[in-house]
Amino acid sequence: MVKKVLKFGGTSVGTIERIQHVAKIVKKEHDSGNQIIVVVSAMAGKTNELIKFSKVVSLNFDERELDVLLSSGEQVTCALLAGALIEQKINAKSFLNWQLPILTEGEHNNSRIVNMNTEKVNNFLKNGVAIIPGFQGISKNGDITTIGRGGSDATAVAVAKLFNTDSCEIYTDVDGVYSSDPNKIPVAKKINKISYDEMLELSSLGAKVMQSPAVQTAMMYNIPLEVKSTFTNRTGTKIFDQQNIDYSKSVTGVAYSKDDAKITLTGVADKPGVAANIFEPLNKSQINVDMVIQNISSDEKTTDITFTIKRDDLLKTIKILKENSNISYKNISHNDKVAKISIVGAGMVSTPGVTYKMFRGLADEKINILAISTSEIKLSVIIEEENTLNAVKKLHTIFELD
Amino acid sequence: MVKKVLKFGGTSVGTIERIQHVAKIVKKEHDSGNQIIVVVSAMAGKTNELIKFSKVVSLNFDERELDVLLSSGEQVTCALLAGALIEQKINAKSFLNWQLPILTEGEHNNSRIVNMNTEKVNNFLKNGVAIIPGFQGISKNGDITTIGRGGSDATAVAVAKLFNTDSCEIYTDVDGVYSSDPNKIPVAKKINKISYDEMLELSSLGAKVMQSPAVQTAMMYNIPLEVKSTFTNRTGTKIFDQQNIDYSKSVTGVAYSKDDAKITLTGVADKPGVAANIFEPLNKSQINVDMVIQNISSDEKTTDITFTIKRDDLLKTIKILKENSNISYKNISHNDKVAKISIVGAGMVSTPGVTYKMFRGLADEKINILAISTSEIKLSVIIEEENTLNAVKKLHTIFELD
Repeated sequence: MVKKVLKFGGTSVGTIERIQHVAKIVKKEHDSGNQIIVVVSAMAGKTNELIKFSKVVSLNFDERELDVLLSSGEQVTCALLAGALIEQKINAKSFLNWQLPILTEGEHNNSRIVNMNTEKVNNFLKNGVAIIPGFQGISKNGDITTIGRGGSDATAVAVAKLFNTDSCEIYTDVDGVYSSDPNKIPVAKKINKISYDEMLELSSLGAKVMQSPAVQTAMMYNIPLEVKSTFTNRTGTKIFDQQNIDYSKSVTGVAYSKDDAKITLTGVADKPGVAANIFEPLNKSQINVDMVIQNISSDEKTTDITFTIKRDDLLKTIKILKENSNISYKNISHNDKVAKISIVGAGMVSTPGVTYKMFRGLADEKINILAISTSEIKLSVIIEEENTLNAVKKLHTIFELD
Repeated sequence: MVKKVLKFGGTSVGTIERIQHVAKIVKKEHDSGNQIIVVVSAMAGKTNELIKFSKVVSLNFDERELDVLLSSGEQVTCALLAGALIEQKINAKSFLNWQLPILTEGEHNNSRIVNMNTEKVNNFLKNGVAIIPGFQGISKNGDITTIGRGGSDATAVAVAKLFNTDSCEIYTDVDGVYSSDPNKIPVAKKINKISYDEMLELSSLGAKVMQSPAVQTAMMYNIPLEVKSTFTNRTGTKIFDQQNIDYSKSVTGVAYSKDDAKITLTGVADKPGVAANIFEPLNKSQINVDMVIQNISSDEKTTDITFTIKRDDLLKTIKILKENSNISYKNISHNDKVAKISIVGAGMVSTPGVTYKMFRGLADEKINILAISTSEIKLSVIIEEENTLNAVKKLHTIFELD
């Protein structure tokens, strides 16, 4: 007897017909003798519609009531899917956030699941399919909480952990994780196996197949994941611990993001505490700094600091830098037409020449590198935005991913 | 300090702008120093949309899950109204069916409220407005239940009773109860005061301002009601115990309904148990028989029985009558183009000649009466549907309601 969590995202349950289709997938798994817990998102567009409603009411909509509002979306999907399964003669039952309950900690709109009462559902699983709303829980005070956008993935992983299931399958509208964006890079290939680390680097870089916090939790508890399509029967991408993967290639994928901006401060005094002075006020204003590069300046007494932030934060960041008297520099420049291109691969560490190969490839395309940042399994560069696709295609080819 | 229940129906909260308008009404009441509990319906159209979804999934959608599905509608309104009040600097909080909790008994889709925990809300009312979803509760097993269509009125009355409030105001899209349908009878007038009995007769006869079960509960516990408009400042209709009303007119209103059908069985054996044999199988099939008239037949050994049912039940009823061997008659005839016209008034009993006046009025218009039924405060006739408006207008005039 295998116990499985099947999670269906918003697009997978976006219409009644799709919910009926999901019911067929669940029935097939149930009829194979598996114990099934289903985690569902709100129907595609529903959460955005409710958020839009809340914004018309108030730009500072009360956080407690926002969670009451948004959590209704998954409740609707739970009931419709339970009804669709019962129509197919499967014993099914929805277990809402307070009925289970799903206990959370933390702030409204950004809680995390800490526990679930598994007994009721485990008893039910003996002869039925349990359906649980993603993205939500209740606080110890008995208020409804939500766990952040995309939180249904996190619910699925928490269910997998707390119910000690054998697998956690994330059904979505793509059939797996690709070596690059398949919409833009037609030669991109589906990856059959990937490590948690690589998945994290790819998903934080714009390959939005799964939300990062969910992958992090899965990595922490070593819960094997599988991302697969609701709409095809193709095998998906399995996400494992690194040691379970046999790397034949140094680079697993090429990712890019186009929502970054670059700021350079030149003539910054080269003494201890300077960087802290710059980034402390940004941190306080919740501006997320991504890459940071520091170089000795030409006059050798000062230094130049370049860093990247989300493009949306650009004006706010410049304002803070200009108004804060603790920060001294000669000149400030910025570029909001940049893109970040990253190659990701757990095999990179053991393969010499990956860095050189990447720079050579970009140079061949006459693409100028504005900044570089490296980690153990990732190498990112900032380039002019207009060169994005050229760069991604070139790297995809030279690392033999086509 | 006055404690009030304000109930807002689906049309009153049908858009975000209307919810903001409702927040203004609630704020005004709160600012006047009143303790306010608000009961809300789902946004207009929402419940029908969810029912439509359920019907696509299954024509026998599971009843437990249907309640999970439908109850989401009022949850959304609760959160949006709480947010709108907080935006207007009013301390407000939603209390959902399980948070309060609202305890119910009975079947899914048709439960009744038996209790609420009042302590939490009463504490909150000291400095805030409590918002409660109409139409729903939970069973003692912890399942979500709903209390039937239009059940938000019943929730409001239950809140008034259990919280011992001073008044119960039903805000809706009309500004009160009228002496007849104001859309069809332009001379119809708003009634300022009406008794529970009259209101019940009128609402069961198509004046759908309030749902009958809610009025019945209010009558049982002598809870004064007020029906008023969300969209105008006009005073509404107060609904009291009969003894609090000074009747200057014998007839309070003229109601009509056009969803009836009439069936006549002729040549039925005139012996004990015949009527029971006819109506028992109808009752078993949940067919609601309204008026019943029995007359000696022309041959004096048999009898003729005429009765009315909902037009939707006509085919089913005829099938049952024809197939049931316990029922013997000579001939069966039916007419589904009939209307029921009723005059209602608590003052009728003490005013002689009301019956005669009604029959004379209809005769003057050459309207044939197909059946007659009377109660203490109501006199109903069945006529051909095409004469409906003529009859209502005539009766409205002769009973001085114009």
